[in-house]
Amino acid sequence: MNATDDVRRSMVLRRRPDGEPRADDFAIVEDPVPLPGQGQVLIRTILLSIDPYMRGRLADRPSYAPSVAIGEVMTGEVLGEVMASLDPGFEQGDIVVGARGWQTHVLAGAATLTKVDRHAAPLGAWLGVLGMPGVTAYSGMKDIGQPRRGETVVVSAASGAVGSVAGQLAMREGCRVVGIAGGPDKCLWVQESLGFHDCVDHRADLSGALKEACPGGIDVYFENVGGAVQQAAFDLLNVHARVVMCGMISQYNEPTFPPGPNLGFVVGRRVRIEGMLVFDKPERYAEWRALAAPWVRDGSLRYRETVIDGLENAPEALRLVLRGGNFGKMLVRVAEEPR
Amino acid sequence: MNATDDVRRSMVLRRRPDGEPRADDFAIVEDPVPLPGQGQVLIRTILLSIDPYMRGRLADRPSYAPSVAIGEVMTGEVLGEVMASLDPGFEQGDIVVGARGWQTHVLAGAATLTKVDRHAAPLGAWLGVLGMPGVTAYSGMKDIGQPRRGETVVVSAASGAVGSVAGQLAMREGCRVVGIAGGPDKCLWVQESLGFHDCVDHRADLSGALKEACPGGIDVYFENVGGAVQQAAFDLLNVHARVVMCGMISQYNEPTFPPGPNLGFVVGRRVRIEGMLVFDKPERYAEWRALAAPWVRDGSLRYRETVIDGLENAPEALRLVLRGGNFGKMLVRVAEEPR
Repeated sequence: MNATDDVRRSMVLRRRPDGEPRADDFAIVEDPVPLPGQGQVLIRTILLSIDPYMRGRLADRPSYAPSVAIGEVMTGEVLGEVMASLDPGFEQGDIVVGARGWQTHVLAGAATLTKVDRHAAPLGAWLGVLGMPGVTAYSGMKDIGQPRRGETVVVSAASGAVGSVAGQLAMREGCRVVGIAGGPDKCLWVQESLGFHDCVDHRADLSGALKEACPGGIDVYFENVGGAVQQAAFDLLNVHARVVMCGMISQYNEPTFPPGPNLGFVVGRRVRIEGMLVFDKPERYAEWRALAAPWVRDGSLRYRETVIDGLENAPEALRLVLRGGNFGKMLVRVAEEPR
Repeated sequence: MNATDDVRRSMVLRRRPDGEPRADDFAIVEDPVPLPGQGQVLIRTILLSIDPYMRGRLADRPSYAPSVAIGEVMTGEVLGEVMASLDPGFEQGDIVVGARGWQTHVLAGAATLTKVDRHAAPLGAWLGVLGMPGVTAYSGMKDIGQPRRGETVVVSAASGAVGSVAGQLAMREGCRVVGIAGGPDKCLWVQESLGFHDCVDHRADLSGALKEACPGGIDVYFENVGGAVQQAAFDLLNVHARVVMCGMISQYNEPTFPPGPNLGFVVGRRVRIEGMLVFDKPERYAEWRALAAPWVRDGSLRYRETVIDGLENAPEALRLVLRGGNFGKMLVRVAEEPR
């Protein structure tokens, strides 16, 4: 890491990626580290959260959030240490998280930041299991999936930051939980470490294996993937099943979207298919942190991280996330943790 | 009508239709009019309700209800007059409705029948606007659509037995209501008689006209049709839109179902797509009859009927319903109304 204390490095979008994002779709620009004004906080970035939704910010097709403009700093959740604060709520040395961007130093309005307890959980957890992905899983299950004891719950991208939490929440409700993941290593971890009842490798015989793993059909499907994985799960949905539409990562790099499932079954089986975005219910963040931090501390809520070093490798980290090249939550380490 | 008082004529399924149902997929069989046993009621059928869902009962693919077996009497809602009753709840001359079948005389358990007030509404209304189609519209709007004042509500098959009620319910909530129907006559009736704000002919420039009719997008889509109509409506759904999945009549005669919409938009726009069947909430029947019978009487809830004479023409009536050859509720008159 070659940042000095008075130079800020920022990763800006040079051009919109065609398919997979590549390093040269981005560029690093340098400017002086800014000083906070009234109500502002200056943060030294420690970790960046890399998440599939970010691909949407790079495209110029309509989306729920404005695209990142060419020349603008790439957006994303960060965790950092307060260097200077002109807001009474924060002081030097505080560890904070906020939705900012890919930069070594972040200047943020105090209202956009949340202080976290660095002793309550490892720092990375505040961007993953206790951060936006964890809240996404919690909100999706609480507000849409609503799994009940004895039901069968299927989670795609089951080893990922969202899926691993979604499945563990269903386990806590007394459900039969089946994961779908890419490759035997991930499937093994999902079964052995997370304790899911089964995990199906979507690179093998997906629909046959899923059917075998769900002999009573599927009551809740937590969707992160789309495509063939979606179709295989939809084929097994029970009467009154709920589908939490959280993401469809399989198509995020595609220039046009393929057709989807015929929806006739939705009528006869009275299925509910519902989309969600974590920011619709901001109150879920605090709820989830209070609920889950003790579970992280006592080891009953498990997670895994892939950490890549260096701001300059953030584009590659995003490319890997979009092709399943991560294992668990993907983080970029921009600077060392404070001692 | 050539039924005599001691012969019962029943329309049975001869073979499963290939595509559109045809008269020779069915056959009429005769047997003696049965006598009721304890707790049973004998009914002289006056009207049959002909509904799109019936196509599913003729196929042997998986559905929410068992198929009609070859040689079995075709199922369906009927309205008739009690000829004899061995149940204290019914007496000769009562007018009743029940889900029975295509027969001149029906023998039914008393618990499966509902007495209706022949003076409260014209008889046909008890199978249409106040019957299963009306309850379907009511339940779909109450339990899923939940239209709110100022929202835009789009209803496909808007002149049909279900769609015409669904749209009028949304009008009562103070919504902007746009119908989709087949042909200028139906569109004119939907606008002029039902008072919808607009009605788009799906045989003309569907998506352009629908966009023009919904300048603020669509908040509730009541789906009866599927196919291109569905896609045009989905393209305009707003954030937090609700889709009432009631039916997809455009594909009921198809041997295999075409692909559907890519569901990526469901995430970003947080859409809820939910299927319904009227029999899931049986309590809605009585609720709806109590609510809507006065509206039928005072003329504020409007409907239209296509009536075809003769049990032998029931298959043709079903064929017409499946291709939009009806205008409003399709009924078959099996016998004259009592004076």
